[in-house]
Amino acid sequence: MEIGFLGLGIMGLGMGRNLLKHGFKLVVWNRTLSKCDELIKEGATLGKSPADVVKRCKITIAMLADPAVALSVVFDKDGVLESIGPDKSYVDMSTVDSSTSCSIHKAIAEKGGRFLEAPVSGSKKPAEDGTLIILAAGDESVYSEVLPAFEVMGKKSFYLGEVGNGARYKLVVNMIMGSMINAFSEGLVLADKSGLSQQTLLEVLDLGAIATPMFKMKGPSMLKDKFDPAFPLKHQQKDMRLALALGDEVSVSMPVAAASNEAFKMAKSMGLGDLDFSAVYKAVNHGSA
Amino acid sequence: MEIGFLGLGIMGLGMGRNLLKHGFKLVVWNRTLSKCDELIKEGATLGKSPADVVKRCKITIAMLADPAVALSVVFDKDGVLESIGPDKSYVDMSTVDSSTSCSIHKAIAEKGGRFLEAPVSGSKKPAEDGTLIILAAGDESVYSEVLPAFEVMGKKSFYLGEVGNGARYKLVVNMIMGSMINAFSEGLVLADKSGLSQQTLLEVLDLGAIATPMFKMKGPSMLKDKFDPAFPLKHQQKDMRLALALGDEVSVSMPVAAASNEAFKMAKSMGLGDLDFSAVYKAVNHGSA
Amino acid sequence: MEIGFLGLGIMGLGMGRNLLKHGFKLVVWNRTLSKCDELIKEGATLGKSPADVVKRCKITIAMLADPAVALSVVFDKDGVLESIGPDKSYVDMSTVDSSTSCSIHKAIAEKGGRFLEAPVSGSKKPAEDGTLIILAAGDESVYSEVLPAFEVMGKKSFYLGEVGNGARYKLVVNMIMGSMINAFSEGLVLADKSGLSQQTLLEVLDLGAIATPMFKMKGPSMLKDKFDPAFPLKHQQKDMRLALALGDEVSVSMPVAAASNEAFKMAKSMGLGDLDFSAVYKAVNHGSA
Amino acid sequence: MEIGFLGLGIMGLGMGRNLLKHGFKLVVWNRTLSKCDELIKEGATLGKSPADVVKRCKITIAMLADPAVALSVVFDKDGVLESIGPDKSYVDMSTVDSSTSCSIHKAIAEKGGRFLEAPVSGSKKPAEDGTLIILAAGDESVYSEVLPAFEVMGKKSFYLGEVGNGARYKLVVNMIMGSMINAFSEGLVLADKSGLSQQTLLEVLDLGAIATPMFKMKGPSMLKDKFDPAFPLKHQQKDMRLALALGDEVSVSMPVAAASNEAFKMAKSMGLGDLDFSAVYKAVNHGSA
Repeated sequence: MEIGFLGLGIMGLGMGRNLLKHGFKLVVWNRTLSKCDELIKEGATLGKSPADVVKRCKITIAMLADPAVALSVVFDKDGVLESIGPDKSYVDMSTVDSSTSCSIHKAIAEKGGRFLEAPVSGSKKPAEDGTLIILAAGDESVYSEVLPAFEVMGKKSFYLGEVGNGARYKLVVNMIMGSMINAFSEGLVLADKSGLSQQTLLEVLDLGAIATPMFKMKGPSMLKDKFDPAFPLKHQQKDMRLALALGDEVSVSMPVAAASNEAFKMAKSMGLGDLDFSAVYKAVNHGSA
Repeated sequence: MEIGFLGLGIMGLGMGRNLLKHGFKLVVWNRTLSKCDELIKEGATLGKSPADVVKRCKITIAMLADPAVALSVVFDKDGVLESIGPDKSYVDMSTVDSSTSCSIHKAIAEKGGRFLEAPVSGSKKPAEDGTLIILAAGDESVYSEVLPAFEVMGKKSFYLGEVGNGARYKLVVNMIMGSMINAFSEGLVLADKSGLSQQTLLEVLDLGAIATPMFKMKGPSMLKDKFDPAFPLKHQQKDMRLALALGDEVSVSMPVAAASNEAFKMAKSMGLGDLDFSAVYKAVNHGSA
Repeated sequence: MEIGFLGLGIMGLGMGRNLLKHGFKLVVWNRTLSKCDELIKEGATLGKSPADVVKRCKITIAMLADPAVALSVVFDKDGVLESIGPDKSYVDMSTVDSSTSCSIHKAIAEKGGRFLEAPVSGSKKPAEDGTLIILAAGDESVYSEVLPAFEVMGKKSFYLGEVGNGARYKLVVNMIMGSMINAFSEGLVLADKSGLSQQTLLEVLDLGAIATPMFKMKGPSMLKDKFDPAFPLKHQQKDMRLALALGDEVSVSMPVAAASNEAFKMAKSMGLGDLDFSAVYKAVNHGSA
Repeated sequence: MEIGFLGLGIMGLGMGRNLLKHGFKLVVWNRTLSKCDELIKEGATLGKSPADVVKRCKITIAMLADPAVALSVVFDKDGVLESIGPDKSYVDMSTVDSSTSCSIHKAIAEKGGRFLEAPVSGSKKPAEDGTLIILAAGDESVYSEVLPAFEVMGKKSFYLGEVGNGARYKLVVNMIMGSMINAFSEGLVLADKSGLSQQTLLEVLDLGAIATPMFKMKGPSMLKDKFDPAFPLKHQQKDMRLALALGDEVSVSMPVAAASNEAFKMAKSMGLGDLDFSAVYKAVNHGSA
């Protein structure tokens, strides 16, 4: 089974490598072509453009940085649209909002192609380890076709119905996560100012009912003032905003998410937007000097 | 080693039974004496009053319902104070605020007794399974003495310094937990109103970085509208209030905890105070009819 | 001086009448033409369409219901764009967001016309009394030209710079207003539940440093459960949302506005969106049964 | 009519002077006796102690700095309790919480004396101008007796029922005020960061439905970064906290007040507690650098 793969950034590289390791044939393309070198050494073929990749493969997977790139790869010259058509499937695993996803879907459908959105939960490490969670929505026949690839890239995939639902699940999850990192940060600051050991608090938390991989992973680096961006704060804040906007559409009052969003905004205004989203801890601390 | 044990309620019964099973000798007392029957069948001896229990044992452990009971067991007629003195230790594992703990500590110290507060993290099941987390603070020599009993009742115990610190750690943990259950509830309601499956959301959450035993345990019953009180909402709200008061003392701004507290207050005003704290989900839903 | 006037709804009727009374000649148009009858009896001339009105007048003022209508009156067949050009000015006094305003501005400028946005602060009564506050922005020469008309319709007008600024000031004012009506509602509910007289509270408030026309006007009807829509709650909520979005763009953390917005959303979900914005009081009460 | 007057601080001095001007005879006392000099020159008599003042006057009014002083003037040696009794009335106009008020009430009642609490709304200037708002509660016969004095010190007095209600009304008013100064601050910061003129915003606000004396008075000094304490921020925050505690007792959810309280706490943690409460503006700005 030959698969096209567009986008070999932080996430895409690990995902593509896992496909190769498990025997899939890949035609790869990346805007900066040199980023394809590693996978070509490992057996992948170079595509000249998105259009070229789609022409050569029945299924093309994309893993791109943001909605703007996701759109340009499809709509620009030499883009996906030039080659897509009946018997071609396009699987966009990038994290985009549902309106971006819908406009890509529409354009591809008009050419007779089939479309699946499949954003993932998980960052660099799960991409490398093949333990992503895949939130797929759109054409169910494409889902069935691409499932063997999903099984290699992720530990679990879900088929979630109509296009847009993948993005919506991801927003809900990220909204919960954003409030949780705020709750965690407030607790760490309160402990510190009350004369308690933050280190001990981490141990206590890790033993109880609210233990989470996130606290275990982020806690120690937060206390060391280390915020290497696994998931940049500005993207977390954007997701909070979009989740609140979704809540606005469907009239759900979410005061805790709203308070969390304002904390992320404060963090952004402090210049922390490019750090990891756990840097909201610095904003909480800042409000408690 | 003979140990006194005061209070055989939901928590105390499981804790006492674990001590018996592991070879400790127990002198037990409970306000409603009939609640002692089970453990007496399993080998415990009946004490006639708190004073009687303390007279007969070097170490007495208490696990009582709330601060009012904790105080009355110590200060009332036939209470702990009547028998406490040099060579006697009192270990209060009830969840009380730090001022209650301090006044008990002071009274016992004046009689020459030694005191350890040791509130626990964990509810009925961990009490039965011996997997509580024990947050001890006060006299370190008592901690060393009672450690064998802690090892039977809990999976881990911490010695946390001066009296009051046990209560403070517990408040911080419960504050984080309270914001988390709100975040979780908002996410579940948002999913539902957006046409997503709440069941699938639970599965997605359970696979990712913010998976927690709490979501796994509470989620399914929340969706079934079941809120048997493992930890009553009114107690959770009280802990949020006390944590915010602690933040007030030490000037920590905690907008997410404050928003969560107001949600719990709304739930209380809806008459949900005696249900499980996860019933805040009903308040979030209520604000989004 | 002959002026075109598009839109004779709740606001426009009073404004147009004031212009007539003070000697301006008016060419009027309204989608439902019958609404023009009154002013025609009072001396106005009927225009057949927006294009017709603009053709006949150097200056045309519009006072339309919402952004959608504001756009259609300009861009649709027989719309403003068909007749606008050099020596023609268009003054849009409707409340629209800044992007709507900017797209109208752009289209008119391309035809050589001049544009001023001039949203107002004030509702039905000030429109009738000629005591609106006019927030003008755009072409300053148009502002000078139309000033005599502004002086008749309003008690004060401001020239605020580039197109979009009028809308922005209005958002800021409405955001403050939205938080204030929430604060007021919370105070009224707290008084009631604490056994205090709400009526006395209104009197106390009206005598002190935080007395405002709004509390004086809305308070008594809120207590009577009367919420005739002077300014519908759903529009207030939309303005809160847009103000928060503006804060998002410029990285301003506004936790109080965010909490207020969530209260308005709860009110909307309770079906109160078409009532006056002071009906958020019902939502606050609802959360405190 | 001879009246005792205890406390000649910022407020008491103006109040006492107004009484003298209108023909009341005063026996005055202040902890720092030299503060009595001015009023003695204007005709007042010096009392040696609170007990001495009460012995000489049927009615004694107190205007003291805070609950601690209010209690010590009553309960300490040479305090009010030593001379109070049947036919003596004590009117406490200090701002204290309802529990302080109740304990003073109880002690005086046990001696056969009569008690009225009468906290005021208004600060230095209204005290000097005799335009305070007086919130009286307690013994209604005392209210009738002291009314002529209230009419000189205030523009309006209310009789509000049982002891504690005066304090409660004041909390509700201050809670609304606290949320309003936050809303105002957020609006000013949003205007500034959006490129709008804050000065113009003040003018626009002052013309509309949400114009208030507070915005007019505080706005200009806030923009000049001047925060001379008419009402210290730490006291405002304390009142927000007490109002939220009152809401907690009666189960009223107040998310906007809660968010405002957290902003005041942030301001306190920034060292702004002794400045005017409008300095919360600096905290809002701080969160939006």
